[in-house]
Amino acid sequence: MTLIDQFTSQYGPMSKMDAFGYLKHLDEHPDEPRRHGKIVMVTADTPLKASRGEGKTTTTIALIDALRARGIDAAAVLRQPSMGITAAGSKGGASGGGKASLEHAELVDWGLCGEMGAIEAAQNLLVSFAEKAIDDGLIDTILVPRVSEVPSRSLRHITVDHGKGDVAERVVLTPTCELMQIVVLSHSMEEIGERVAVMVAGTKDGVPVTFGSFIDLWRITNILTDAVKPARTQTRQGSPVYVHCGPFANVSLGIPSLVSVRMACALHDVVVVEAGYGADAGAQKWLDIACREYGAQWPAAAVIVTRATTWRDDPTLSWRYPFHVQRLEMLDIPTFPLINLWEGEDGQVEELRATAKEAEFREPIIGNLFRDGGDALVKQLDPFVRTLEAGSAPAQRHSHRGMSLIENAKWIAEHAYGVPADRVRLRDGFVDSLSDADELCSQLGLSIDDLAFVAVKSPATMTDDDSAPEDRRTVTLKKVEVHAGAGVVQVNLTTSLTTPMPKIV
Amino acid sequence: MTLIDQFTSQYGPMSKMDAFGYLKHLDEHPDEPRRHGKIVMVTADTPLKASRGEGKTTTTIALIDALRARGIDAAAVLRQPSMGITAAGSKGGASGGGKASLEHAELVDWGLCGEMGAIEAAQNLLVSFAEKAIDDGLIDTILVPRVSEVPSRSLRHITVDHGKGDVAERVVLTPTCELMQIVVLSHSMEEIGERVAVMVAGTKDGVPVTFGSFIDLWRITNILTDAVKPARTQTRQGSPVYVHCGPFANVSLGIPSLVSVRMACALHDVVVVEAGYGADAGAQKWLDIACREYGAQWPAAAVIVTRATTWRDDPTLSWRYPFHVQRLEMLDIPTFPLINLWEGEDGQVEELRATAKEAEFREPIIGNLFRDGGDALVKQLDPFVRTLEAGSAPAQRHSHRGMSLIENAKWIAEHAYGVPADRVRLRDGFVDSLSDADELCSQLGLSIDDLAFVAVKSPATMTDDDSAPEDRRTVTLKKVEVHAGAGVVQVNLTTSLTTPMPKIV
Repeated sequence: MTLIDQFTSQYGPMSKMDAFGYLKHLDEHPDEPRRHGKIVMVTADTPLKASRGEGKTTTTIALIDALRARGIDAAAVLRQPSMGITAAGSKGGASGGGKASLEHAELVDWGLCGEMGAIEAAQNLLVSFAEKAIDDGLIDTILVPRVSEVPSRSLRHITVDHGKGDVAERVVLTPTCELMQIVVLSHSMEEIGERVAVMVAGTKDGVPVTFGSFIDLWRITNILTDAVKPARTQTRQGSPVYVHCGPFANVSLGIPSLVSVRMACALHDVVVVEAGYGADAGAQKWLDIACREYGAQWPAAAVIVTRATTWRDDPTLSWRYPFHVQRLEMLDIPTFPLINLWEGEDGQVEELRATAKEAEFREPIIGNLFRDGGDALVKQLDPFVRTLEAGSAPAQRHSHRGMSLIENAKWIAEHAYGVPADRVRLRDGFVDSLSDADELCSQLGLSIDDLAFVAVKSPATMTDDDSAPEDRRTVTLKKVEVHAGAGVVQVNLTTSLTTPMPKIV
Repeated sequence: MTLIDQFTSQYGPMSKMDAFGYLKHLDEHPDEPRRHGKIVMVTADTPLKASRGEGKTTTTIALIDALRARGIDAAAVLRQPSMGITAAGSKGGASGGGKASLEHAELVDWGLCGEMGAIEAAQNLLVSFAEKAIDDGLIDTILVPRVSEVPSRSLRHITVDHGKGDVAERVVLTPTCELMQIVVLSHSMEEIGERVAVMVAGTKDGVPVTFGSFIDLWRITNILTDAVKPARTQTRQGSPVYVHCGPFANVSLGIPSLVSVRMACALHDVVVVEAGYGADAGAQKWLDIACREYGAQWPAAAVIVTRATTWRDDPTLSWRYPFHVQRLEMLDIPTFPLINLWEGEDGQVEELRATAKEAEFREPIIGNLFRDGGDALVKQLDPFVRTLEAGSAPAQRHSHRGMSLIENAKWIAEHAYGVPADRVRLRDGFVDSLSDADELCSQLGLSIDDLAFVAVKSPATMTDDDSAPEDRRTVTLKKVEVHAGAGVVQVNLTTSLTTPMPKIV
């Protein structure tokens, strides 16, 4: 029995991994053998709309299958798809497709091992305890929102205690909630408890009150017992895949749990981490939140997926793909363009290579990954593998801790969206919202500038209007919300939804 | 590998059983060996309040441990405790206590393998599809309620689409919802799909519209893939225990899934089924719904648990325990009184035996089951075991199908609550509510009198006032609600909650 087997349990056709326990064991036993896997980030072009994926998961699966076919011990870490959105038919699953699919995709897409349901119950229980705190006179206003994994447009705005209190409340999607963020970012159950303790339940006479001051934290952590364990499955070709935590990088962190990535790096030589929707959402967050603020490993290479049609067919938006490729290269991340062909596009390869050459890309990787899976990639990966083998482990990048929120927003606008600082606008009300958030933080003994900056925006746009000419693109900051437990500040910008509760279509 | 092993998967420390598959295999292979287990029903005195259990689960566990110590292949089937209620601290868990406990009680009490979360997501998705049906003009009024496993008093009455539609909605506890009832009652995934298809989404111009007319049923059944599988664990002494589906016999079915009981009967000689809260709720429903209307096996014996204090300490309520014992005896169910002693009550045994003799009970079984577990019972079980060995399989009892709803209510009031037909009252508005429900059924092509009658009431009372003198006790019928998919009609009576959404305490 290997070490990791001692931290692994069978859960039906999946395994669940006690990542907390395994990583603790490694920390306490420095001589215990382990790998020091390098991270490859798979991200994508900004999608034309949220429901139209470029094929990040398909690419991730094909990529590890191809790397393993070349004798490299590669594995993938994926985010758990939102079952609610999939079940509602608003979006396909997120478990690859065709030859580049997961085993037991039906489980991955349809609730995995109950993780999301547990996080939903735990966050909603916090709301119930906040209500009790109202009854007990400990708070007079609830700030923590309810959650639902199932999207329902009418939940965007609700009033509870109808006919009596008629209290306006918010309901947000479970994958985007603060407790999900806490599970994503924490390295132990104790850390989860500590973070829940500093979550703000509400206010009493305008002063914030945290959950730690009035609830039994074990009631929340007990619910999360199994939810904190990454699930392990494999691709149809047998390559190992870990699945853990929240999607939706447009409105939340949108990264897999940090422990799932750390664990995979201790078990494999190359770990492919999926980060989407587009590079402006998922990659920005992996780099600027997970790596800069939470110590995750800087990628040794990146792959940016696009479809030929996304890249080219709307000339007003075709600037986005080269922008993403160049941005990551400028961060010293060797960045490989990958064009995921659809049926009937095989004839376009030469033309696509020419366009990539014009854009001064590295030689693009091109294939129909749905049809051919990793076979489409194996022979194209020489430069990619040479890059991985040649590079030393990337250095840690500096944190933005202490940078003022507006400066941070301007830095992100410039670096991730291509909009210079002087075209970052503040919407009416933004300054008040920031001031309120600042005051809340002061009352909690925190500095808002020490929180990690989470951009909340549409997945399909980086700026107020991506179709505008370059010198007229702007980014408008709209609203600020503090998640003290997660240690993040959410900033709504461009065409964000204030309550991400989509209508089903 | 035995046959059942082929239908069993490990889920962490629990097993999950494909009961649908196993029972189908047995049906298709009549020569396949199987047991023909007899059912023992463990029920209880009516509790003084909902949060104070008599010890049904503790008794069930001690009983199977004691039977197995005597060489009898006994197993238990328990209902999944409501994690929301447990986590909120409103009630302890429901996984026994002390020496009569389950292995992995922390999982049983805290969400099992995600079953409740999946059922919650599926029922809430139905509400989202109903909203879409409103947008599409297919319905104009939603009748299916949202659900939450976590109790929250302010959800009793909510309005959604605040500021626009301001639509009043109901939220009920997940364990009590129609989809939970459907999972409890169904024998295959196809049956679940068929039942969901006849669930009423809402109405259009007053005419009911069922989900089957506009949704993809696989979206619902996919979510339920693992939720339909009973979990298997064991007592601390190693006796097999199956756990599956909804608690709360006061406001819903409150019985474990029919397939979990059928499966256990095919695997063991004696199957102890827990039915509570009290005999007026759980036993009434096991007998009158599961057995009479859905073909479950009539019990070969019953055990009715009480605490010495529940039985005796309120003289105005002390009629209830003998009433329950006599009622089950009159149904030809050999009924064994069991007094579950608390710490410091050992000295009361003789006195309790004398009181039982006065009441003309069978010799009571008395012990401190928390402290001593099955050891407290082994030597007292001779008459109980002789009864089980002597009796032939009980005959099926007649259905009430076709009996008018009010006649059925009167029959239950008389037989289960001890209130004669002429003291069953109809509250103002009941006749209208019944008439509306009757009309709904007609429009669906159903007869309301063919639906199984589900009493919705407080767990702590059988009549409008259990403390009143016998000749002044009444039962008031208040409201009727049809669950066409589950095939039941819910009738609120006595001190029922119309929306069972408790405040946490």
